[in-house]
Amino acid sequence: MIPLLESIQEIVGPSGVLTGEDVSGRSDSWPPTGGCQALAIVRPGSTNEVSAVLKLCHEHGQAVVTHGGLTGLVGGAKAGPGEIALSLERMNSIGTVDTVNRTIAVQAGVALQAVQETAEGAGLLFPLDLGARGSATIGGVISTNAGGNGVIRYGMMREQLLGVEAVLADGTVISSMKDVIKNNTGYDLKQLFTGSEGTLGIITRAVLRLRSLPRSQNTALVAIEKFEHLGQFLQAMDSVLGGTLSAFEVMWNDFYTLIVGNGEKHGLPLDTSHAFYVLLESAGGDEESDKARFDAALEEALGNGLIVDAVIAQSKQQRNDLWGIRDDVEGLVESLFPPLTFDISLSIPQMDDYVEEVRRQLASRWENARMVVFGHLGDGNIHLGIGVGSREPAVVHAVEEIVYQALERRAGVISAEHGIGLEKRSYLAHSRSPEEIALMKTIKTAMDPKNILNPGKILEI
Amino acid sequence: MIPLLESIQEIVGPSGVLTGEDVSGRSDSWPPTGGCQALAIVRPGSTNEVSAVLKLCHEHGQAVVTHGGLTGLVGGAKAGPGEIALSLERMNSIGTVDTVNRTIAVQAGVALQAVQETAEGAGLLFPLDLGARGSATIGGVISTNAGGNGVIRYGMMREQLLGVEAVLADGTVISSMKDVIKNNTGYDLKQLFTGSEGTLGIITRAVLRLRSLPRSQNTALVAIEKFEHLGQFLQAMDSVLGGTLSAFEVMWNDFYTLIVGNGEKHGLPLDTSHAFYVLLESAGGDEESDKARFDAALEEALGNGLIVDAVIAQSKQQRNDLWGIRDDVEGLVESLFPPLTFDISLSIPQMDDYVEEVRRQLASRWENARMVVFGHLGDGNIHLGIGVGSREPAVVHAVEEIVYQALERRAGVISAEHGIGLEKRSYLAHSRSPEEIALMKTIKTAMDPKNILNPGKILEI
Repeated sequence: MIPLLESIQEIVGPSGVLTGEDVSGRSDSWPPTGGCQALAIVRPGSTNEVSAVLKLCHEHGQAVVTHGGLTGLVGGAKAGPGEIALSLERMNSIGTVDTVNRTIAVQAGVALQAVQETAEGAGLLFPLDLGARGSATIGGVISTNAGGNGVIRYGMMREQLLGVEAVLADGTVISSMKDVIKNNTGYDLKQLFTGSEGTLGIITRAVLRLRSLPRSQNTALVAIEKFEHLGQFLQAMDSVLGGTLSAFEVMWNDFYTLIVGNGEKHGLPLDTSHAFYVLLESAGGDEESDKARFDAALEEALGNGLIVDAVIAQSKQQRNDLWGIRDDVEGLVESLFPPLTFDISLSIPQMDDYVEEVRRQLASRWENARMVVFGHLGDGNIHLGIGVGSREPAVVHAVEEIVYQALERRAGVISAEHGIGLEKRSYLAHSRSPEEIALMKTIKTAMDPKNILNPGKILEI
Repeated sequence: MIPLLESIQEIVGPSGVLTGEDVSGRSDSWPPTGGCQALAIVRPGSTNEVSAVLKLCHEHGQAVVTHGGLTGLVGGAKAGPGEIALSLERMNSIGTVDTVNRTIAVQAGVALQAVQETAEGAGLLFPLDLGARGSATIGGVISTNAGGNGVIRYGMMREQLLGVEAVLADGTVISSMKDVIKNNTGYDLKQLFTGSEGTLGIITRAVLRLRSLPRSQNTALVAIEKFEHLGQFLQAMDSVLGGTLSAFEVMWNDFYTLIVGNGEKHGLPLDTSHAFYVLLESAGGDEESDKARFDAALEEALGNGLIVDAVIAQSKQQRNDLWGIRDDVEGLVESLFPPLTFDISLSIPQMDDYVEEVRRQLASRWENARMVVFGHLGDGNIHLGIGVGSREPAVVHAVEEIVYQALERRAGVISAEHGIGLEKRSYLAHSRSPEEIALMKTIKTAMDPKNILNPGKILEI
């Protein structure tokens, strides 16, 4: 063990430092691409220990990669052979819910699902939700500003965060554990740690905002024939459902047909002849009248031709079955294998044209190219799943160029909710100007002058 | 005219530089405390001109104070005799509403109300709203992260902002004019300019998010006898009204009694015997069923004793009359003259105790002390209006010490929505730790090394 690790072990205890097979036996990216290569995995048990470890690493210019649940999709947690991985896995305590203030304080290593369940146990809702909820940690969803399915109603992780505690590169503890919604006392430092993917500090604790648990839930899958009807339908639903619209997920025909196929796995709630499918959900305060309004809104949309068919979930099971189509990542991966996935945002009016351009370019380059499109259209965010029969770096690069160049021409962004990490770093300039990137580097250098925090992620310093 | 001003005049044209009485004839704070003392008021007509002016000022180490609508309450726009005031008043163009994407691009000098009206003209809502809407500019509400009446439903200004263009101290233009809701492409730079009160850059343009125009509005004034019922009533309403709860304004008895008095000015919608009054509003998607739900919710709350009396507005006029009580700043100022006002946030469960402690301390110090309490309780934010018969600096200081020390002991914050500016600067440490303040200075110094942007506001560098 190198001297620095020995000193770290004095801080975190013998079980706090993993080396050898305890490191290489873990994967630090998803989908897994081999074992973690880090020098060691350090597992502090408290904020003070994180602080002491960082202070040492700072003195030694030792690079540190923070590990949460390791469910990120852009290589943001990959640690190289000379880097230390700092895992928050031992810092996973959950405070009690403040039911009046509707807040909860947690350590960063706690899993998203544990927070959701604790909130629900107190009759409240923690609204951020995504597929990796069982593994993804609160520190991870803050540092990546995660999105997911409830953004249209509740916003991204940034909007769920009231207070934060983070440790800076030199070990300084920044404690902003306030539990109030409004706080205009100088710079809002928590915004710096949110979405910066562990490059500006290590989040150790957070105060989260909780919401009322919905008393009603209504879900439908509807079919739409024209792209412009998607936007009109979204607006109509948002307007009539008031503040209760909680999901507006769109599947292009290619996605729906690919996943549903002949109906073997998911049934055929709607046939595969339609151009677009929308999974629509509302979450409100009164079961009976919310259902009446939801049904009436769909009937009106059918009447005026915005939608051409609809199936309304009549039970929790039917609701889950409908979501099962939208969330069938496994089916997607299988069908496109090896799949290339993209997470982009652009102005809704430009989406149709964009998708068609990418599709044309892929088809003209690869005979067997396949692309499916789906995502959180209500937030202007779609995912592309692309299969061209290879994951060779040169092929991936060629696909990325097609996807991102067409996006840049439409002022879209190359990452809506997944972040930049390592995988999108070389494309950052497709979405951000040289001046923006220079300012990011100014901030990074000011806060982490030795570039020890997740170096090389987002930015090349 | 000093040579620097002559050079600036070459950039902005003769009408772009005001001096002499054109400067001293303006006030740069509210309430007005005398004329603007700035060396000159510079009025660029474009982002390029702002950039060129800042570049020059940067070279000369010339301090620049940005002027929007000058409706801030903490002296954040005050300019000293050696400083240049840079007013965005000529940069007030409004783009067309994108009704599909529900966005609008505007220049920073446009008035809040103009944006609201333009959105409404396109059948949409710009939800940020506050009393100074006719004068306050978009650049101002961004740079102060303004709050106001709709925060409980729509969030503060930060949540309404999709894209921003700002000019850095050295004239660099940071253009992040994206119109998408989700954008995780590196550091979210617009967060730096939001709420930093012109100390990190000058906002020149913005892309704002618009929402559905509510189809229903229900308003009531209710009476509550116990503090703990306030929180319970808030939760009950938030739960049953789903996502439609749009205001939850509380007035302590002292406020209500002071403003309503014997009913001469505002009538007596509820008598003055109750401990608390809540102005409750919902904004939803369907007139008939929203009203039914609103009325039923109040009936239930009356039935279970959470509230003891209620009056529901039956017309737009009645609604305005009820809001007239809450918004009667004039009456407040008159009655407490000279008034000292505070804008604080703290955890709801601690509010009652806090208010009583401040009241006790004021009473023991000043025989004729008066305090009234009101505010956005749904956001954890209350305002204190205090009158002790004097606005002498020593008296103001003594009152501030009482208000802020009791707050610090409860981990509250000294500014919920007004900002720090000059007036609260010396109290910043009551809400922020030395480490937090040091990090703010690190950011400030990195972005504005010569300290030319609104120097001395928020932080003493």
